[in-house]
Amino acid sequence: MELEFLGTGAGVPAKNRNVTSIALKLLNERNEIWLFDAGEGTQQQILRTTIKPRKITKIFITHLHGDHLYGLPGLLSSRSFQGGNTPLTIYGPQGVDTYVRTSLRVSDSHLTYPIHYVILKNPGKLFEDNTFKVEVAKLDHRIPSFGYRIIEKDHAGELLVDKLRADGVPSGPIYGQLKAGQDVTLPDGRLIHGKDYVGPAQKGRIVTILGDTRKNKNGLKLAQNADVLVHESTFGDEEKKLAHQYYHSTSTEAADIAKKAHVGELLLTHISARYVGKMSQQLEREARQIFPHTRVMNDFDTYTIPLRSGKDA
Amino acid sequence: MELEFLGTGAGVPAKNRNVTSIALKLLNERNEIWLFDAGEGTQQQILRTTIKPRKITKIFITHLHGDHLYGLPGLLSSRSFQGGNTPLTIYGPQGVDTYVRTSLRVSDSHLTYPIHYVILKNPGKLFEDNTFKVEVAKLDHRIPSFGYRIIEKDHAGELLVDKLRADGVPSGPIYGQLKAGQDVTLPDGRLIHGKDYVGPAQKGRIVTILGDTRKNKNGLKLAQNADVLVHESTFGDEEKKLAHQYYHSTSTEAADIAKKAHVGELLLTHISARYVGKMSQQLEREARQIFPHTRVMNDFDTYTIPLRSGKDA
Repeated sequence: MELEFLGTGAGVPAKNRNVTSIALKLLNERNEIWLFDAGEGTQQQILRTTIKPRKITKIFITHLHGDHLYGLPGLLSSRSFQGGNTPLTIYGPQGVDTYVRTSLRVSDSHLTYPIHYVILKNPGKLFEDNTFKVEVAKLDHRIPSFGYRIIEKDHAGELLVDKLRADGVPSGPIYGQLKAGQDVTLPDGRLIHGKDYVGPAQKGRIVTILGDTRKNKNGLKLAQNADVLVHESTFGDEEKKLAHQYYHSTSTEAADIAKKAHVGELLLTHISARYVGKMSQQLEREARQIFPHTRVMNDFDTYTIPLRSGKDA
Repeated sequence: MELEFLGTGAGVPAKNRNVTSIALKLLNERNEIWLFDAGEGTQQQILRTTIKPRKITKIFITHLHGDHLYGLPGLLSSRSFQGGNTPLTIYGPQGVDTYVRTSLRVSDSHLTYPIHYVILKNPGKLFEDNTFKVEVAKLDHRIPSFGYRIIEKDHAGELLVDKLRADGVPSGPIYGQLKAGQDVTLPDGRLIHGKDYVGPAQKGRIVTILGDTRKNKNGLKLAQNADVLVHESTFGDEEKKLAHQYYHSTSTEAADIAKKAHVGELLLTHISARYVGKMSQQLEREARQIFPHTRVMNDFDTYTIPLRSGKDA
């Protein structure tokens, strides 16, 4: 479970920061990649990574501003061109389907796979299966903008096979019963307890990725106890008024959310091109005054989301 | 008058060749830049050049395949963001207006300048003013694809002021009459002839830029006597069948057109990603067997179109 930042700029591309796209790599967990936003040039950025477009199974669009959207038709076409043939689901605000369909129709593009559209309407659960759940809520931006909370489900503990062998417990259907936590009477008459032979459960991780937004209570709610919060930081603390006026956040506002939500790590992105080179470190320093576990992300930076210890389970 | 190749790849972007866009820089002639096609990432490529988006006054789209089109909305938005406020004209096939309008509407983009759309219908003259004329014709591709012939008008010769001074001709309205080619009687009674005091006229240059196409007679016609022909070369000679099947051209077919049309220079672009690195030189070698003045263009290559000598006028 790893985040890879494909574009960390705001509004327009800059030489060193492309417009927004973030990959959530779930290769160990699902052999899938989920993409959050697809600004223009996302497919070109992907060419410089190990990401295979055909492994992208879900694309979540936070809002329809061009710097989060205009790379979508090209990426969809290239996924097709490169042999992707598995279905893909696009989650996004009303209009994302019109935009994609019009782009593909006008350009006479025929994809080798079906697209399923899920238009964001109600807050709450957006997706759920055996291993993951995704929740969504609306943020505070000039146009409808959404945040996503990706919740990995808890894993059951591993069966301690070495210990079973050491204790002379013969393999067989018994192992399944023990793993399920049951008590079992062995052929030799011993009663043994599943809980003694199962390692600690592993708590699922939580990743929160917010679209462009002013500081607001839904952002805080989505971020609650997340292992990692990806938050926009278009401006620094000195531009608080400007941030408010343009429905954006400052580094310190993002840090305030991270602190109140008790997240593990705050990753700042969507950095205005005015913060060139080392100037972006100023945003990091400001935020760390409030929330020390903060990093300003650059294009192609990755962040591996650490496993939670069993004790938390 | 200079061409700058912003993207020289085909179909999908590759690491070293972005999808198609070509700038015709008319900075000396009109203080304008005309763009031919705008594949995804064109605005990012422009960031690595000296091109200012606000100087782009005309965008000619050859056809609506995504690799020639998907960079248009982002470029238009950035032109606005960067202070462009002069009108822009987009020439392109039916549907280009729908695509741009839908993209801008869905993304709630409000440009600071008006766009004027000219939908390509009839072959022939598309644009004309005092200094340039543009003609268009349909080529042979899977979807409607067009070629453009950009014709610089002839410049009158320069007045030879040094010679006038040497011959003791006083400056004044007389100079205008002489430049216009008139005969003039001087105050001292001498009759002098304009043609003796005007340098050679300068023949206007012709640039032909074709969209994706099979070899066809309209391409040949548009290229006739052009100073430079920009022609696709998706494939090499060994893939003649594949080229035909996909409505594309090979390097040798492009060279054949260049030879028959008596062009000055042939610039090959739209190179399939299969011709990696030095392999693309093979395309150049093949074409030069037929038409020696051939170059395979790479991203960011420029070509200055030489002035024609006066004798040609």
